[in-house]
Amino acid sequence: MSNPFIINPGEGKEKKNEPDGKSDVVIIGGGPAGLTAGLYNARAGLKVTLIEKMAVGGQIFLTNEIENYPGIEKTSGPELIQVMEKQAKNFGVNIVFDEAVEITGSGENEKTIKTASEKEYKTAAVIISAGAKYKDLGVPGEEKFKGRGISNCATCDGAFYKNMDVAVVGGGDTAVEEADFLTKFASRVYLIHRRDRLRAVKSLQDKALSNPKIETVLDTIVEKIDGDSAVEKADIKNVKSGVKKELPVKGVFVYVGLRPSTGFLKGYVSLNERGYISVDKDMKTSKDGVFACGDCIEKNLRQAVTAAGDGAVAAYGAQHFVERIKGTEYV
Amino acid sequence: MSNPFIINPGEGKEKKNEPDGKSDVVIIGGGPAGLTAGLYNARAGLKVTLIEKMAVGGQIFLTNEIENYPGIEKTSGPELIQVMEKQAKNFGVNIVFDEAVEITGSGENEKTIKTASEKEYKTAAVIISAGAKYKDLGVPGEEKFKGRGISNCATCDGAFYKNMDVAVVGGGDTAVEEADFLTKFASRVYLIHRRDRLRAVKSLQDKALSNPKIETVLDTIVEKIDGDSAVEKADIKNVKSGVKKELPVKGVFVYVGLRPSTGFLKGYVSLNERGYISVDKDMKTSKDGVFACGDCIEKNLRQAVTAAGDGAVAAYGAQHFVERIKGTEYV
Repeated sequence: MSNPFIINPGEGKEKKNEPDGKSDVVIIGGGPAGLTAGLYNARAGLKVTLIEKMAVGGQIFLTNEIENYPGIEKTSGPELIQVMEKQAKNFGVNIVFDEAVEITGSGENEKTIKTASEKEYKTAAVIISAGAKYKDLGVPGEEKFKGRGISNCATCDGAFYKNMDVAVVGGGDTAVEEADFLTKFASRVYLIHRRDRLRAVKSLQDKALSNPKIETVLDTIVEKIDGDSAVEKADIKNVKSGVKKELPVKGVFVYVGLRPSTGFLKGYVSLNERGYISVDKDMKTSKDGVFACGDCIEKNLRQAVTAAGDGAVAAYGAQHFVERIKGTEYV
Repeated sequence: MSNPFIINPGEGKEKKNEPDGKSDVVIIGGGPAGLTAGLYNARAGLKVTLIEKMAVGGQIFLTNEIENYPGIEKTSGPELIQVMEKQAKNFGVNIVFDEAVEITGSGENEKTIKTASEKEYKTAAVIISAGAKYKDLGVPGEEKFKGRGISNCATCDGAFYKNMDVAVVGGGDTAVEEADFLTKFASRVYLIHRRDRLRAVKSLQDKALSNPKIETVLDTIVEKIDGDSAVEKADIKNVKSGVKKELPVKGVFVYVGLRPSTGFLKGYVSLNERGYISVDKDMKTSKDGVFACGDCIEKNLRQAVTAAGDGAVAAYGAQHFVERIKGTEYV
């Protein structure tokens, strides 16, 4: 290579993703946002650790059928997540199963993520993609029967209700989709919504409403879930007429909104009044070097594709932050 | 159905996507952003017309291999776009091939999109996803050989250079990917970049630099592209040493940045100083009822997945705008 123009800019830049030691980026949460951020950061040559509490997937893992993820005609939550996880791992993301309980450090200083198993992960940048969970109804009987008759996951628990009557509570996309899915098992699905019409997009409504097993129960709230050793009925009330009724159901599936999983942050970054993380267009939080993406941030639309898009943007921000503090940024 | 709780909220809401007549939403540009916006809006029951100038796809159509689109392990630009187009059409998006040349109207008033074929499309909301195109080098010989020796698309034109030497100009992801792809055909690929190192992510650099057919030529600019009836050489100059050289190449592939395709807007919405459309986090432009997404908006990271994510957000905004002006919004 006598050509004076030719040099090799990649020399000596090799990095290893060892499970121990310091990371360039620690990602908290392994849904579509976190896995996409991991994919992007690892592909850029950064050392990335992703901490996931349960199993990768987040909310999307609970979704049975997905037809609006652009570029994939039909998929399911578990299928989509499996590919995203594989992509992240192929690029070298180190995925650990543990629960982040505290983050300390800020700015150009090293940050430390403490976990439930009392490990400490040191890193230059942090990406929070901790997601959100379904809200409870807050009615009598809910504590007693949660996980044994009351569920947030038709994909997980639908098969337990073969030839039984069940109720779905909520009026958004998820509630309507899950009601439709439950008709594969249940003999009848009551779709209970407190407003006078559903919020779900038209195509979902059309599908659900043409399904003879679904009965839409509008202007109605659940007041109590009752039974002896198992769920036997839901007490409902029409909020307009005041008429009360007992619905004989063996299962209740609850989709009445989300609550962000941001409690562990304890003021580390700014949240809005509903507990979602405040970020700018580049997914920067109130703390330098700390980014957030996916269902846990303040935004209007929470979808797999918006989480993935956010994740790529957060990764881009984290990458440039790491390059800046290492003095290797090149604009 | 004697149950007083049961009504059918879907009744009488059927909409047809007729090619003529007014739309709820007109989308300008059929890349990942526009097709995703179309998918979301049509799925929500809106009447959607998408106007595409050439063929659906946008920039991504030129990409041969994609490994970082979350949820799809390996794909290509044309393959990804084909599925997105199918999804959009399945939900009822009406795709027309024409070129938008002017938009008029604003706020709650009807907007009109005039096209090159002198048609007019009337709509409540507009989503601009017109994309961006590669910049020219601006050197002598470029006009003469553009499309016949100078290209922006290795996927399209690479096969013409079997066993020949070619040059790729640029240092970002696209330049490095395309250089690597061109080694399938060319005997040697000079990767010419004006800086002292490449900008592309590490995994791409590693792959390209370990390819014996690629010679990286750094700190170097192209000053002229020359030849008689076809490209024969590129005159290059090392910007540090001042040394000039002639590279004997039959083809030059140019990837030196993007220029947004926003000229047709002529002040209709606010642009930044580089011509990109200014939007807020909800993809709203400076005009009420007009949204923008994808490569044509002001942002840091332009990827298929960020375009798709933006597209979903823009569609959500357009949907709520349409519902608001029709008095059917329900929060």
